[in-house]
Amino acid sequence: MRNTERNIQQRIQDMYADRTQGASELAREGLDIAADAAYQLSATNALALVTALQSLAHDIMITRTSMTPVYKLLHAWSEQLEELTDIDLPTARQTAQNMAYDLVNQSLRFTQQLVQAAYYFIGENKTLFTHSLSSTLISIAEQLVDKNINFIITESRPLNEGVILAEKLSKLAIPTTLITEAQLGLFIKHADLVFVGADSILPDYSVVNKAETYLLALAAKAQNIPFYVCCESFKLRDENMPHIALEEMAASETCRETWDNVTIKNIYFDITPPNLVTAWINENGVNPVPPN
Amino acid sequence: MRNTERNIQQRIQDMYADRTQGASELAREGLDIAADAAYQLSATNALALVTALQSLAHDIMITRTSMTPVYKLLHAWSEQLEELTDIDLPTARQTAQNMAYDLVNQSLRFTQQLVQAAYYFIGENKTLFTHSLSSTLISIAEQLVDKNINFIITESRPLNEGVILAEKLSKLAIPTTLITEAQLGLFIKHADLVFVGADSILPDYSVVNKAETYLLALAAKAQNIPFYVCCESFKLRDENMPHIALEEMAASETCRETWDNVTIKNIYFDITPPNLVTAWINENGVNPVPPN
Repeated sequence: MRNTERNIQQRIQDMYADRTQGASELAREGLDIAADAAYQLSATNALALVTALQSLAHDIMITRTSMTPVYKLLHAWSEQLEELTDIDLPTARQTAQNMAYDLVNQSLRFTQQLVQAAYYFIGENKTLFTHSLSSTLISIAEQLVDKNINFIITESRPLNEGVILAEKLSKLAIPTTLITEAQLGLFIKHADLVFVGADSILPDYSVVNKAETYLLALAAKAQNIPFYVCCESFKLRDENMPHIALEEMAASETCRETWDNVTIKNIYFDITPPNLVTAWINENGVNPVPPN
Repeated sequence: MRNTERNIQQRIQDMYADRTQGASELAREGLDIAADAAYQLSATNALALVTALQSLAHDIMITRTSMTPVYKLLHAWSEQLEELTDIDLPTARQTAQNMAYDLVNQSLRFTQQLVQAAYYFIGENKTLFTHSLSSTLISIAEQLVDKNINFIITESRPLNEGVILAEKLSKLAIPTTLITEAQLGLFIKHADLVFVGADSILPDYSVVNKAETYLLALAAKAQNIPFYVCCESFKLRDENMPHIALEEMAASETCRETWDNVTIKNIYFDITPPNLVTAWINENGVNPVPPN
Protein backbone atom coordinates (compact mmCIF):
# COMPACT_ATOMS: atom_id res chain seq x y z
CA MET A 1 0.00 0.00 0.00
CA ARG A 2 1.38 3.43 -0.89
CA ASN A 3 1.99 6.01 1.82
CA THR A 4 -0.90 8.24 0.77
CA GLU A 5 -3.33 5.31 0.79
CA ARG A 6 -2.04 4.16 4.15
CA ASN A 7 -2.53 7.71 5.42
CA ILE A 8 -6.12 7.75 4.14
CA GLN A 9 -6.85 4.36 5.74
CA GLN A 10 -5.34 5.57 9.01
CA ARG A 11 -7.57 8.64 9.04
CA ILE A 12 -10.64 6.44 8.44
CA GLN A 13 -9.51 4.23 11.34
CA ASP A 14 -9.17 7.34 13.50
CA MET A 15 -12.74 8.33 12.61
CA TYR A 16 -13.92 4.93 13.75
CA ALA A 17 -12.07 5.21 17.06
CA ASP A 18 -12.96 8.84 17.79
CA ARG A 19 -15.00 9.22 20.99
CA THR A 20 -14.96 13.00 21.41
CA GLN A 21 -16.21 14.53 18.15
CA GLY A 22 -19.88 14.62 17.28
CA ALA A 23 -21.58 13.35 14.13
CA SER A 24 -21.34 16.62 12.16
CA GLU A 25 -17.68 17.13 13.01
CA LEU A 26 -16.86 13.58 11.98
CA ALA A 27 -18.84 13.98 8.75
CA ARG A 28 -16.73 17.03 7.94
CA GLU A 29 -13.58 15.09 8.75
CA GLY A 30 -14.82 12.37 6.38
CA LEU A 31 -15.32 14.96 3.63
CA ASP A 32 -11.86 16.35 4.31
CA ILE A 33 -10.38 12.88 3.86
CA ALA A 34 -12.39 12.60 0.63
CA ALA A 35 -11.14 16.00 -0.60
CA ASP A 36 -7.52 14.99 -0.01
CA ALA A 37 -8.11 11.61 -1.65
CA ALA A 38 -9.38 13.35 -4.80
CA TYR A 39 -5.76 14.37 -5.41
CA GLN A 40 -3.97 11.49 -3.75
CA LEU A 41 -5.59 8.32 -5.11
CA SER A 42 -3.89 6.94 -8.22
CA ALA A 43 -6.08 6.75 -11.37
CA THR A 44 -5.46 6.64 -15.11
CA ASN A 45 -8.60 8.54 -16.06
CA ALA A 46 -11.62 10.28 -14.55
CA LEU A 47 -13.80 7.16 -14.61
CA ALA A 48 -11.18 5.21 -12.63
CA LEU A 49 -10.83 8.12 -10.19
CA VAL A 50 -14.60 8.30 -9.63
CA THR A 51 -14.76 4.54 -9.07
CA ALA A 52 -11.92 4.71 -6.52
CA LEU A 53 -13.40 7.74 -4.75
CA GLN A 54 -16.87 6.19 -4.58
CA SER A 55 -15.35 3.09 -3.02
CA LEU A 56 -13.55 5.31 -0.51
CA ALA A 57 -16.75 7.26 0.19
CA HIS A 58 -18.47 3.98 0.97
CA ASP A 59 -15.71 3.01 3.42
CA ILE A 60 -16.09 6.35 5.21
CA MET A 61 -19.91 6.18 5.19
CA ILE A 62 -19.91 2.97 7.21
CA THR A 63 -17.34 4.03 9.84
CA ARG A 64 -19.98 5.42 12.19
CA THR A 65 -23.24 3.64 11.68
CA SER A 66 -25.14 5.63 14.33
CA MET A 67 -24.11 8.98 12.82
CA THR A 68 -26.29 9.90 9.88
CA PRO A 69 -24.36 12.99 8.65
CA VAL A 70 -21.32 10.80 7.99
CA TYR A 71 -23.48 8.58 5.78
CA LYS A 72 -25.52 11.33 4.21
CA LEU A 73 -22.80 13.85 3.33
CA LEU A 74 -20.44 11.20 1.94
CA HIS A 75 -23.35 9.67 0.04
CA ALA A 76 -24.22 13.08 -1.44
CA TRP A 77 -20.60 13.53 -2.51
CA SER A 78 -20.52 10.06 -4.01
CA GLU A 79 -23.62 10.85 -6.10
CA GLN A 80 -22.17 14.17 -7.27
CA LEU A 81 -19.04 12.36 -8.49
CA GLU A 82 -21.17 10.69 -11.21
CA GLU A 83 -20.99 13.95 -13.18
CA LEU A 84 -17.21 13.66 -13.49
CA THR A 85 -16.74 10.38 -15.33
CA ASP A 86 -16.41 11.90 -18.82
CA ILE A 87 -14.08 14.84 -18.19
CA ASP A 88 -10.28 15.10 -18.09
CA LEU A 89 -8.52 13.72 -14.99
CA PRO A 90 -7.04 17.00 -13.58
CA THR A 91 -10.43 18.73 -13.80
CA ALA A 92 -12.13 15.71 -12.25
CA ARG A 93 -9.70 15.79 -9.29
CA GLN A 94 -10.19 19.52 -8.79
CA THR A 95 -13.98 19.32 -9.11
CA ALA A 96 -14.26 16.30 -6.78
CA GLN A 97 -12.27 18.18 -4.16
CA ASN A 98 -14.38 21.33 -4.58
CA MET A 99 -17.56 19.28 -4.22
CA ALA A 100 -16.32 17.88 -0.90
CA TYR A 101 -15.34 21.33 0.37
CA ASP A 102 -18.73 22.72 -0.70
CA LEU A 103 -20.44 20.07 1.40
CA VAL A 104 -18.15 20.91 4.36
CA ASN A 105 -19.10 24.56 3.99
CA GLN A 106 -22.78 23.75 3.76
CA SER A 107 -22.51 21.71 6.96
CA LEU A 108 -20.70 24.56 8.73
CA ARG A 109 -23.28 27.09 7.52
CA PHE A 110 -26.16 24.93 8.75
CA THR A 111 -24.45 24.57 12.13
CA GLN A 112 -24.03 28.35 12.40
CA GLN A 113 -27.70 28.91 11.50
CA LEU A 114 -28.71 26.27 14.03
CA VAL A 115 -26.64 27.93 16.78
CA GLN A 116 -28.33 31.26 16.05
CA ALA A 117 -31.80 29.69 16.06
CA ALA A 118 -31.09 28.01 19.41
CA TYR A 119 -29.58 31.17 20.87
CA TYR A 120 -32.65 33.27 20.11
CA PHE A 121 -34.98 30.51 21.23
CA ILE A 122 -33.33 30.01 24.63
CA GLY A 123 -33.28 33.69 25.53
CA GLU A 124 -32.02 34.42 29.04
CA ASN A 125 -32.42 33.51 32.74
CA LYS A 126 -32.78 29.78 32.11
CA THR A 127 -31.47 26.51 33.50
CA LEU A 128 -30.66 24.06 30.72
CA PHE A 129 -30.26 20.33 31.22
CA THR A 130 -28.11 18.51 28.69
CA HIS A 131 -26.44 15.12 28.30
CA SER A 132 -23.21 14.15 26.57
CA LEU A 133 -20.90 16.51 24.69
CA SER A 134 -22.02 18.30 21.54
CA SER A 135 -19.86 20.84 19.68
CA THR A 136 -23.08 22.60 18.66
CA LEU A 137 -24.10 22.90 22.28
CA ILE A 138 -20.72 24.40 23.18
CA SER A 139 -21.15 26.96 20.38
CA ILE A 140 -24.59 27.80 21.79
CA ALA A 141 -23.15 28.10 25.31
CA GLU A 142 -20.48 30.50 24.03
CA GLN A 143 -23.27 32.74 22.70
CA LEU A 144 -25.18 32.55 25.98
CA VAL A 145 -22.42 33.95 28.22
CA ASP A 146 -23.88 36.94 30.15
CA LYS A 147 -27.46 35.74 29.57
CA ASN A 148 -27.76 34.32 33.09
CA ILE A 149 -27.88 30.72 31.88
CA ASN A 150 -27.10 27.75 34.13
CA PHE A 151 -26.38 24.20 33.01
CA ILE A 152 -27.09 20.85 34.60
CA ILE A 153 -24.97 18.19 32.88
CA THR A 154 -24.25 14.48 33.28
CA GLU A 155 -20.80 12.92 33.46
CA SER A 156 -21.70 10.65 30.47
CA ARG A 157 -20.22 7.29 31.23
CA PRO A 158 -18.23 5.39 30.14
CA LEU A 159 -15.71 7.96 28.89
CA ASN A 160 -17.07 10.95 30.84
CA GLU A 161 -17.24 13.50 28.05
CA GLY A 162 -19.56 15.41 30.41
CA VAL A 163 -16.44 16.14 32.44
CA ILE A 164 -14.90 17.77 29.33
CA LEU A 165 -18.10 19.81 28.96
CA ALA A 166 -17.89 20.85 32.65
CA GLU A 167 -14.38 22.15 32.07
CA LYS A 168 -15.45 24.11 28.96
CA LEU A 169 -18.47 25.64 30.74
CA SER A 170 -16.24 26.53 33.69
CA LYS A 171 -13.94 28.47 31.36
CA LEU A 172 -17.00 30.33 30.02
CA ALA A 173 -17.90 31.17 33.67
CA ILE A 174 -21.32 29.52 33.19
CA PRO A 175 -22.63 28.11 36.51
CA THR A 176 -22.86 24.35 36.05
CA THR A 177 -24.04 21.38 38.10
CA LEU A 178 -22.31 18.10 37.20
CA ILE A 179 -24.08 14.86 38.17
CA THR A 180 -23.91 11.14 37.55
CA GLU A 181 -26.44 9.78 35.05
CA ALA A 182 -28.19 8.12 38.02
CA GLN A 183 -29.10 11.50 39.57
CA LEU A 184 -30.95 12.71 36.46
CA GLY A 185 -34.35 12.07 38.05
CA LEU A 186 -33.41 14.22 41.06
CA PHE A 187 -32.19 17.22 39.08
CA ILE A 188 -34.53 17.36 36.09
CA LYS A 189 -37.04 19.35 38.13
CA HIS A 190 -34.53 22.20 38.45
CA ALA A 191 -34.33 22.64 34.66
CA ASP A 192 -36.43 25.02 32.57
CA LEU A 193 -35.74 23.02 29.44
CA VAL A 194 -33.77 20.04 28.17
CA PHE A 195 -31.50 20.57 25.20
CA VAL A 196 -29.72 17.68 23.52
CA GLY A 197 -27.89 17.17 20.27
CA ALA A 198 -28.47 14.08 18.13
CA ASP A 199 -26.41 11.71 16.07
CA SER A 200 -29.35 10.82 13.86
CA ILE A 201 -33.05 11.53 13.47
CA LEU A 202 -34.89 8.46 12.20
CA PRO A 203 -37.53 8.76 9.46
CA ASP A 204 -40.29 8.64 12.11
CA TYR A 205 -38.48 11.49 13.99
CA SER A 206 -37.17 9.27 16.75
CA VAL A 207 -33.88 10.65 18.09
CA VAL A 208 -30.65 8.65 18.16
CA ASN A 209 -28.29 10.16 20.71
CA LYS A 210 -25.88 9.12 23.47
CA ALA A 211 -27.40 6.44 25.72
CA GLU A 212 -29.48 7.95 28.60
CA THR A 213 -31.11 10.49 26.29
CA TYR A 214 -34.29 8.35 26.30
CA LEU A 215 -34.33 8.35 30.12
CA LEU A 216 -33.81 12.11 30.13
CA ALA A 217 -36.79 12.49 27.79
CA LEU A 218 -38.96 10.20 29.95
CA ALA A 219 -38.08 12.14 33.11
CA ALA A 220 -38.64 15.49 31.35
CA LYS A 221 -42.08 14.34 30.18
CA ALA A 222 -42.98 13.10 33.66
CA GLN A 223 -42.06 16.48 35.16
CA ASN A 224 -43.50 18.64 32.34
CA ILE A 225 -40.10 20.01 31.28
CA PRO A 226 -39.88 20.68 27.51
CA PHE A 227 -37.38 18.53 25.62
CA TYR A 228 -35.64 20.02 22.57
CA VAL A 229 -33.44 18.27 20.05
CA CYS A 230 -30.94 20.48 18.35
CA CYS A 231 -29.20 19.31 15.16
CA GLU A 232 -28.91 20.04 11.45
CA SER A 233 -31.36 18.53 8.97
CA PHE A 234 -28.42 16.49 7.60
CA LYS A 235 -29.09 14.15 10.52
CA LEU A 236 -32.57 13.17 9.32
CA ARG A 237 -32.49 9.73 7.75
CA ASP A 238 -34.48 8.95 4.63
CA GLU A 239 -36.77 5.93 4.45
CA ASN A 240 -34.49 4.35 1.81
CA MET A 241 -31.33 4.52 3.92
CA PRO A 242 -30.11 1.30 5.53
CA HIS A 243 -31.48 0.38 8.96
CA ILE A 244 -29.44 2.15 11.62
CA ALA A 245 -27.10 0.07 13.78
CA LEU A 246 -26.50 1.43 17.30
CA GLU A 247 -22.73 1.38 17.78
CA GLU A 248 -21.35 -0.89 20.49
CA MET A 249 -17.87 -0.18 21.82
CA ALA A 250 -15.40 -2.26 23.84
CA ALA A 251 -16.76 -3.59 27.15
CA SER A 252 -13.44 -2.70 28.76
CA GLU A 253 -14.40 0.98 28.47
CA THR A 254 -17.05 0.43 31.17
CA CYS A 255 -15.48 -2.32 33.30
CA ARG A 256 -11.98 -3.81 33.16
CA GLU A 257 -12.92 -6.96 35.09
CA THR A 258 -14.51 -10.03 33.53
CA TRP A 259 -16.35 -12.96 35.12
CA ASP A 260 -17.87 -16.21 33.93
CA ASN A 261 -21.60 -15.88 33.13
CA VAL A 262 -21.41 -12.07 33.04
CA THR A 263 -21.73 -10.15 29.75
CA ILE A 264 -20.73 -6.49 29.86
CA LYS A 265 -22.52 -4.34 27.29
CA ASN A 266 -21.42 -0.92 26.05
CA ILE A 267 -23.94 0.39 23.52
CA TYR A 268 -23.32 4.08 22.93
CA PHE A 269 -26.70 5.27 21.69
CA ASP A 270 -30.36 4.91 22.52
CA ILE A 271 -33.54 5.91 20.70
CA THR A 272 -36.03 8.47 22.00
CA PRO A 273 -39.50 8.21 20.44
CA PRO A 274 -40.94 11.38 18.85
CA ASN A 275 -43.82 11.67 21.33
CA LEU A 276 -41.25 12.67 23.98
CA VAL A 277 -39.74 15.45 21.83
CA THR A 278 -41.21 18.94 22.20
CA ALA A 279 -39.52 20.38 19.10
CA TRP A 280 -36.57 19.97 16.76
CA ILE A 281 -34.34 23.01 16.39
CA ASN A 282 -32.39 22.91 13.15
CA GLU A 283 -30.91 25.42 10.65
CA ASN A 284 -34.45 26.43 9.65
CA GLY A 285 -35.57 27.29 13.20
CA VAL A 286 -37.83 25.58 15.72
CA ASN A 287 -39.91 22.80 14.18
CA PRO A 288 -42.71 20.64 15.60
CA VAL A 289 -42.08 16.87 15.77
CA PRO A 290 -43.29 15.39 13.54
CA PRO A 291 -43.47 18.37 11.15
CA ASN A 292 -46.88 19.75 10.23
CA MET B 1 -13.34 9.18 76.51
CA ARG B 2 -13.05 5.60 77.77
CA ASN B 3 -12.01 2.86 75.37
CA THR B 4 -15.45 1.26 75.24
CA GLU B 5 -17.11 4.58 74.47
CA ARG B 6 -14.51 5.32 71.79
CA ASN B 7 -15.20 1.89 70.32
CA ILE B 8 -18.97 2.60 70.22
CA GLN B 9 -18.42 6.00 68.60
CA GLN B 10 -16.11 4.41 66.02
CA ARG B 11 -18.73 1.82 65.12
CA ILE B 12 -21.33 4.58 64.66
CA GLN B 13 -18.86 6.42 62.42
CA ASP B 14 -18.37 3.21 60.41
CA MET B 15 -22.16 2.95 59.94
CA TYR B 16 -22.17 6.47 58.58
CA ALA B 17 -19.34 5.74 56.14
CA ASP B 18 -20.60 2.30 55.04
CA ARG B 19 -21.38 2.18 51.29
CA THR B 20 -21.92 -1.54 50.80
CA GLN B 21 -24.52 -2.69 53.34
CA GLY B 22 -28.20 -2.06 52.84
CA ALA B 23 -30.63 -0.38 55.21
CA SER B 24 -31.73 -3.54 57.05
CA GLU B 25 -28.19 -4.77 57.54
CA LEU B 26 -27.12 -1.40 58.91
CA ALA B 27 -30.17 -1.30 61.19
CA ARG B 28 -29.11 -4.67 62.63
CA GLU B 29 -25.56 -3.37 63.04
CA GLY B 30 -27.03 -0.38 64.90
CA LEU B 31 -28.96 -2.71 67.21
CA ASP B 32 -25.80 -4.75 67.76
CA ILE B 33 -23.96 -1.61 68.82
CA ALA B 34 -26.89 -0.85 71.13
CA ALA B 35 -26.81 -4.35 72.60
CA ASP B 36 -23.11 -4.07 73.39
CA ALA B 37 -23.58 -0.59 74.81
CA ALA B 38 -26.19 -1.92 77.24
CA TYR B 39 -23.29 -3.59 79.06
CA GLN B 40 -20.52 -1.14 78.24
CA LEU B 41 -21.87 2.31 79.05
CA SER B 42 -21.17 3.47 82.59
CA ALA B 43 -24.25 4.16 84.74
CA THR B 44 -24.98 4.30 88.48
CA ASN B 45 -28.56 3.08 88.19
CA ALA B 46 -31.14 1.89 85.65
CA LEU B 47 -32.55 5.36 85.02
CA ALA B 48 -29.09 6.72 84.16
CA LEU B 49 -28.47 3.70 81.93
CA VAL B 50 -31.74 4.21 80.05
CA THR B 51 -30.97 7.91 79.58
CA ALA B 52 -27.49 7.11 78.20
CA LEU B 53 -28.81 4.34 75.93
CA GLN B 54 -31.62 6.51 74.58
CA SER B 55 -29.10 9.21 73.76
CA LEU B 56 -26.97 6.59 72.01
CA ALA B 57 -30.02 5.23 70.15
CA HIS B 58 -30.70 8.76 68.91
CA ASP B 59 -27.12 9.09 67.63
CA ILE B 60 -27.47 5.82 65.72
CA MET B 61 -30.94 6.70 64.38
CA ILE B 62 -29.61 9.76 62.61
CA THR B 63 -26.54 8.16 61.03
CA ARG B 64 -28.38 7.18 57.86
CA THR B 65 -31.21 9.56 57.25
CA SER B 66 -32.40 7.87 54.03
CA MET B 67 -32.61 4.44 55.70
CA THR B 68 -35.82 4.07 57.62
CA PRO B 69 -35.07 0.71 59.36
CA VAL B 70 -32.11 2.34 61.12
CA TYR B 71 -34.45 4.98 62.48
CA LYS B 72 -37.40 2.74 63.13
CA LEU B 73 -35.70 -0.21 64.86
CA LEU B 74 -33.54 1.99 67.06
CA HIS B 75 -36.58 4.12 67.85
CA ALA B 76 -38.54 1.00 68.82
CA TRP B 77 -35.69 -0.09 71.08
CA SER B 78 -35.48 3.39 72.64
CA GLU B 79 -39.21 3.27 73.43
CA GLN B 80 -38.93 -0.22 74.95
CA LEU B 81 -36.16 1.03 77.26
CA GLU B 82 -38.77 3.15 79.10
CA GLU B 83 -39.92 -0.01 80.91
CA LEU B 84 -36.49 -0.42 82.55
CA THR B 85 -36.11 2.78 84.55
CA ASP B 86 -37.32 1.36 87.88
CA ILE B 87 -35.52 -2.00 88.02
CA ASP B 88 -32.08 -2.97 89.26
CA LEU B 89 -29.10 -2.08 87.06
CA PRO B 90 -27.85 -5.61 86.17
CA THR B 91 -31.38 -6.66 85.09
CA ALA B 92 -31.79 -3.44 83.14
CA ARG B 93 -28.55 -4.07 81.24
CA GLN B 94 -29.54 -7.67 80.47
CA THR B 95 -33.07 -6.74 79.42
CA ALA B 96 -31.92 -3.83 77.26
CA GLN B 97 -29.53 -6.16 75.47
CA ASN B 98 -32.20 -8.82 74.98
CA MET B 99 -34.61 -6.24 73.60
CA ALA B 100 -32.01 -5.21 70.99
CA TYR B 101 -31.32 -8.84 70.05
CA ASP B 102 -35.08 -9.54 69.79
CA LEU B 103 -35.39 -6.69 67.29
CA VAL B 104 -32.39 -8.05 65.33
CA ASN B 105 -34.08 -11.45 65.22
CA GLN B 106 -37.38 -9.96 64.16
CA SER B 107 -35.60 -8.12 61.33
CA LEU B 108 -33.85 -11.33 60.23
CA ARG B 109 -37.12 -13.29 60.37
CA PHE B 110 -38.91 -10.67 58.25
CA THR B 111 -36.07 -10.77 55.73
CA GLN B 112 -36.30 -14.56 55.50
CA GLN B 113 -40.08 -14.40 55.00
CA LEU B 114 -39.59 -11.73 52.37
CA VAL B 115 -37.04 -13.84 50.51
CA GLN B 116 -39.46 -16.77 50.47
CA ALA B 117 -42.33 -14.58 49.27
CA ALA B 118 -40.17 -13.20 46.46
CA TYR B 119 -38.86 -16.63 45.52
CA TYR B 120 -42.34 -18.10 45.05
CA PHE B 121 -43.55 -14.99 43.26
CA ILE B 122 -40.71 -14.94 40.70
CA GLY B 123 -41.03 -18.59 39.74
CA GLU B 124 -38.76 -19.67 36.90
CA ASN B 125 -37.60 -18.81 33.34
CA LYS B 126 -37.48 -15.08 33.92
CA THR B 127 -35.18 -12.16 33.20
CA LEU B 128 -34.99 -9.80 36.17
CA PHE B 129 -33.74 -6.23 35.97
CA THR B 130 -32.35 -4.75 39.16
CA HIS B 131 -30.31 -1.72 40.26
CA SER B 132 -27.80 -1.30 43.06
CA LEU B 133 -26.81 -3.97 45.55
CA SER B 134 -29.30 -5.43 48.03
CA SER B 135 -28.47 -8.25 50.46
CA THR B 136 -32.10 -9.33 50.19
CA LEU B 137 -31.79 -9.58 46.44
CA ILE B 138 -28.66 -11.71 46.77
CA SER B 139 -30.52 -14.04 49.15
CA ILE B 140 -33.33 -14.30 46.58
CA ALA B 141 -30.80 -14.98 43.80
CA GLU B 142 -29.28 -17.78 45.88
CA GLN B 143 -32.72 -19.41 46.03
CA LEU B 144 -33.24 -18.99 42.29
CA VAL B 145 -30.18 -20.95 41.15
CA ASP B 146 -31.37 -23.67 38.71
CA LYS B 147 -34.64 -21.83 38.01
CA ASN B 148 -33.38 -20.49 34.66
CA ILE B 149 -33.26 -16.90 35.87
CA ASN B 150 -31.18 -14.20 34.14
CA PHE B 151 -30.27 -10.82 35.56
CA ILE B 152 -29.72 -7.45 33.95
CA ILE B 153 -27.90 -5.18 36.39
CA THR B 154 -26.42 -1.66 36.42
CA GLU B 155 -22.90 -0.79 37.53
CA SER B 156 -24.37 1.70 40.08
CA ARG B 157 -22.13 4.72 40.02
CA PRO B 158 -20.33 6.24 41.81
CA LEU B 159 -18.97 3.31 43.80
CA ASN B 160 -20.07 0.56 41.40
CA GLU B 161 -21.71 -1.83 43.84
CA GLY B 162 -23.31 -3.36 40.74
CA VAL B 163 -19.86 -4.73 39.95
CA ILE B 164 -19.89 -6.49 43.34
CA LEU B 165 -23.33 -7.90 42.48
CA ALA B 166 -22.00 -9.10 39.08
CA GLU B 167 -19.24 -11.00 40.84
CA LYS B 168 -21.71 -12.61 43.27
CA LEU B 169 -24.11 -13.63 40.49
CA SER B 170 -21.18 -15.02 38.50
CA LYS B 171 -20.29 -17.25 41.44
CA LEU B 172 -23.90 -18.46 41.53
CA ALA B 173 -23.58 -19.26 37.77
CA ILE B 174 -26.57 -16.98 37.04
CA PRO B 175 -26.32 -15.48 33.52
CA THR B 176 -25.99 -11.73 33.99
CA THR B 177 -25.77 -8.66 31.76
CA LEU B 178 -23.91 -5.73 33.33
CA ILE B 179 -24.57 -2.25 31.89
CA THR B 180 -23.93 1.39 32.67
CA GLU B 181 -26.90 3.30 34.12
CA ALA B 182 -27.11 5.15 30.79
CA GLN B 183 -28.02 1.94 28.90
CA LEU B 184 -31.06 1.19 31.10
CA GLY B 185 -33.47 2.39 28.42
CA LEU B 186 -31.93 0.01 25.88
CA PHE B 187 -32.09 -3.09 28.06
CA ILE B 188 -35.33 -2.70 30.01
CA LYS B 189 -37.26 -4.27 27.12
CA HIS B 190 -35.36 -7.54 27.64
CA ALA B 191 -36.64 -7.87 31.23
CA ASP B 192 -39.76 -9.73 32.35
CA LEU B 193 -39.87 -7.79 35.58
CA VAL B 194 -37.99 -5.19 37.57
CA PHE B 195 -37.09 -6.02 41.13
CA VAL B 196 -35.52 -3.45 43.43
CA GLY B 197 -34.91 -3.17 47.14
CA ALA B 198 -35.64 0.03 49.04
CA ASP B 199 -34.06 2.07 51.77
CA SER B 200 -37.37 3.57 52.81
CA ILE B 201 -41.04 3.56 51.82
CA LEU B 202 -42.59 6.97 52.45
CA PRO B 203 -46.05 7.27 54.07
CA ASP B 204 -47.59 7.79 50.58
CA TYR B 205 -45.79 4.60 49.40
CA SER B 206 -43.18 6.43 47.35
CA VAL B 207 -39.97 4.41 47.25
CA VAL B 208 -36.62 5.78 48.40
CA ASN B 209 -33.82 3.76 46.81
CA LYS B 210 -30.43 4.24 45.16
CA ALA B 211 -30.50 7.06 42.60
CA GLU B 212 -31.65 5.88 39.12
CA THR B 213 -34.45 3.78 40.59
CA TYR B 214 -36.96 6.46 39.52
CA LEU B 215 -35.62 6.32 35.95
CA LEU B 216 -35.84 2.54 36.01
CA ALA B 217 -39.48 2.81 37.10
CA LEU B 218 -40.27 5.38 34.38
CA ALA B 219 -38.68 3.20 31.69
CA ALA B 220 -40.45 0.07 33.00
CA LYS B 221 -43.80 1.88 32.91
CA ALA B 222 -43.13 3.16 29.37
CA GLN B 223 -42.39 -0.39 28.19
CA ASN B 224 -45.11 -2.15 30.23
CA ILE B 225 -42.65 -4.08 32.39
CA PRO B 226 -43.93 -4.67 35.96
CA PHE B 227 -41.92 -2.93 38.68
CA TYR B 228 -41.70 -4.62 42.11
CA VAL B 229 -40.27 -3.21 45.31
CA CYS B 230 -39.01 -5.78 47.73
CA CYS B 231 -38.35 -4.84 51.37
CA GLU B 232 -39.54 -5.46 54.90
CA SER B 233 -42.40 -3.45 56.39
CA PHE B 234 -39.81 -1.92 58.78
CA LYS B 235 -38.96 0.37 55.90
CA LEU B 236 -42.38 2.03 55.80
CA ARG B 237 -42.23 5.45 57.42
CA ASP B 238 -45.01 6.70 59.64
CA GLU B 239 -46.61 10.08 59.09
CA ASN B 240 -45.18 11.31 62.40
CA MET B 241 -41.56 10.48 61.57
CA PRO B 242 -39.27 13.36 60.62
CA HIS B 243 -39.11 14.42 56.96
CA ILE B 244 -36.65 12.19 55.15
CA ALA B 245 -33.33 13.70 54.05
CA LEU B 246 -31.78 12.14 50.95
CA GLU B 247 -28.15 11.45 51.85
CA GLU B 248 -25.49 13.33 49.90
CA MET B 249 -21.96 11.94 49.89
CA ALA B 250 -18.59 13.45 48.98
CA ALA B 251 -18.40 14.89 45.45
CA SER B 252 -14.95 13.34 45.10
CA GLU B 253 -16.63 9.93 44.89
CA THR B 254 -17.97 10.86 41.45
CA CYS B 255 -15.25 13.19 40.13
CA ARG B 256 -11.84 14.01 41.56
CA GLU B 257 -11.41 17.21 39.54
CA THR B 258 -12.86 20.57 40.54
CA TRP B 259 -13.41 23.74 38.50
CA ASP B 260 -14.62 27.25 39.18
CA ASN B 261 -18.38 27.64 38.58
CA VAL B 262 -18.95 23.86 38.60
CA THR B 263 -20.79 22.17 41.47
CA ILE B 264 -20.51 18.39 41.60
CA LYS B 265 -23.48 16.68 43.26
CA ASN B 266 -23.56 13.16 44.69
CA ILE B 267 -27.01 12.44 46.10
CA TYR B 268 -27.35 8.72 46.74
CA PHE B 269 -31.11 8.22 46.64
CA ASP B 270 -34.07 9.23 44.57
CA ILE B 271 -37.83 8.91 45.09
CA THR B 272 -40.11 6.81 42.90
CA PRO B 273 -43.80 7.77 43.11
CA PRO B 274 -46.28 4.99 43.98
CA ASN B 275 -48.07 5.13 40.61
CA LEU B 276 -44.95 3.59 39.03
CA VAL B 277 -44.87 0.66 41.50
CA THR B 278 -46.73 -2.51 40.49
CA ALA B 279 -46.58 -4.14 43.95
CA TRP B 280 -44.65 -4.19 47.21
CA ILE B 281 -43.29 -7.55 48.25
CA ASN B 282 -42.67 -7.72 51.99
CA GLU B 283 -42.68 -10.36 54.76
CA ASN B 284 -46.46 -10.67 54.38
CA GLY B 285 -46.36 -11.43 50.64
CA VAL B 286 -47.20 -9.42 47.54
CA ASN B 287 -49.15 -6.26 48.32
CA PRO B 288 -50.79 -3.66 46.07
CA VAL B 289 -49.45 -0.10 46.26
CA PRO B 290 -51.06 1.68 47.93
CA PRO B 291 -52.66 -1.12 50.01
CA ASN B 292 -56.36 -1.83 49.59
